[in-house]
Amino acid sequence: MAANEPNGAIARLMHELGKLPGIGPKSAERLTHYLLSASMSDVLALSEALRSIKESIHPCAECCNVTEGERCAICLDPRRDQAVICVVEQPRDVTALERSATYRGVYHVLHGRLAPLDNIGPEQLTIDALLRRVRRGGVLEIIMGTNPTTEGDGTALYLSSVLAPLGVRVTRLARGLPAGSALEFANNQMLDDALEGRRAL
Amino acid sequence: MAANEPNGAIARLMHELGKLPGIGPKSAERLTHYLLSASMSDVLALSEALRSIKESIHPCAECCNVTEGERCAICLDPRRDQAVICVVEQPRDVTALERSATYRGVYHVLHGRLAPLDNIGPEQLTIDALLRRVRRGGVLEIIMGTNPTTEGDGTALYLSSVLAPLGVRVTRLARGLPAGSALEFANNQMLDDALEGRRAL
Repeated sequence: MAANEPNGAIARLMHELGKLPGIGPKSAERLTHYLLSASMSDVLALSEALRSIKESIHPCAECCNVTEGERCAICLDPRRDQAVICVVEQPRDVTALERSATYRGVYHVLHGRLAPLDNIGPEQLTIDALLRRVRRGGVLEIIMGTNPTTEGDGTALYLSSVLAPLGVRVTRLARGLPAGSALEFANNQMLDDALEGRRAL
Repeated sequence: MAANEPNGAIARLMHELGKLPGIGPKSAERLTHYLLSASMSDVLALSEALRSIKESIHPCAECCNVTEGERCAICLDPRRDQAVICVVEQPRDVTALERSATYRGVYHVLHGRLAPLDNIGPEQLTIDALLRRVRRGGVLEIIMGTNPTTEGDGTALYLSSVLAPLGVRVTRLARGLPAGSALEFANNQMLDDALEGRRAL
């Protein structure tokens, strides 16, 4: 079928689905056949939902996280502590931290990390907006929540240097053994972090 | 984020993506974040492709496969042998058989199989259309390409009984060991089929 109507609606949907991460040609074909037999309302709801994230989503004026209003629900929430800002690379990192429901401060989303090899410098990130937030006053602590990678660490280091003159406390998320794992599966870096960061019992 | 804007565009897209087969909450979240940062044109192309399969796809007037025209590309192809019809359950079975590029006949898509327990009888399938095709003449052989399951076999048996009075040859796809597998992994039914259908070398 796909081979016979190469420019048809079915082939086009398979092609578009196949662009998604983790969806290969086989999955795209399976999903397309599912959608062909799915109800009209389900398929149109998905089509509309896709359109609407592009039409109604933009960065929060405060933290640069994705939102539909001018400010995101977290920045608007009076129960959140505006004096503590956790800096993360992507909106998905906010979702991950919110899932744990431990953190009660607010966020700042960089929309990337410093990556000189990819030509991503400070001006491509939302660092200016972060500095403006801090200069406005009321911020006591900035927690670096960038990824535990070379580029994430580099970004955190750069940020701490530009934040230093502003007299704000800069911390970073703890490193160590991942809860629920086993020592035998930990790599050298995890073990180094675990030893270096050991605490009195 | 999802927890904070439960009725927002992002949560809605995650919900709709999560309805797809094989896409759990984690995958739906990952895909949503990918789509948030994907280009406007890619997301709108996917949205449009979804809409168009529901708006422009309907059954082929001849074989009941899904198509955009009045007849599908296979039925219209003058190189295909119209005297041989392979009966399959779903459009995806046509795709699978076309992938092998061995078959040069045409198809008939039942859009299901007889399933008394699910209240699916002959009138829910496209059996009348198949009988009309055969009565019109020119059909020499009907190959049962229903799935090798109890319900698929039952459907093939029922079809062969209603086709018998029309004097057309009815065959079914061979059963046996799946190529590329190992004897030790074959189940009893596969071994029974392989023994029963053995051929001289």
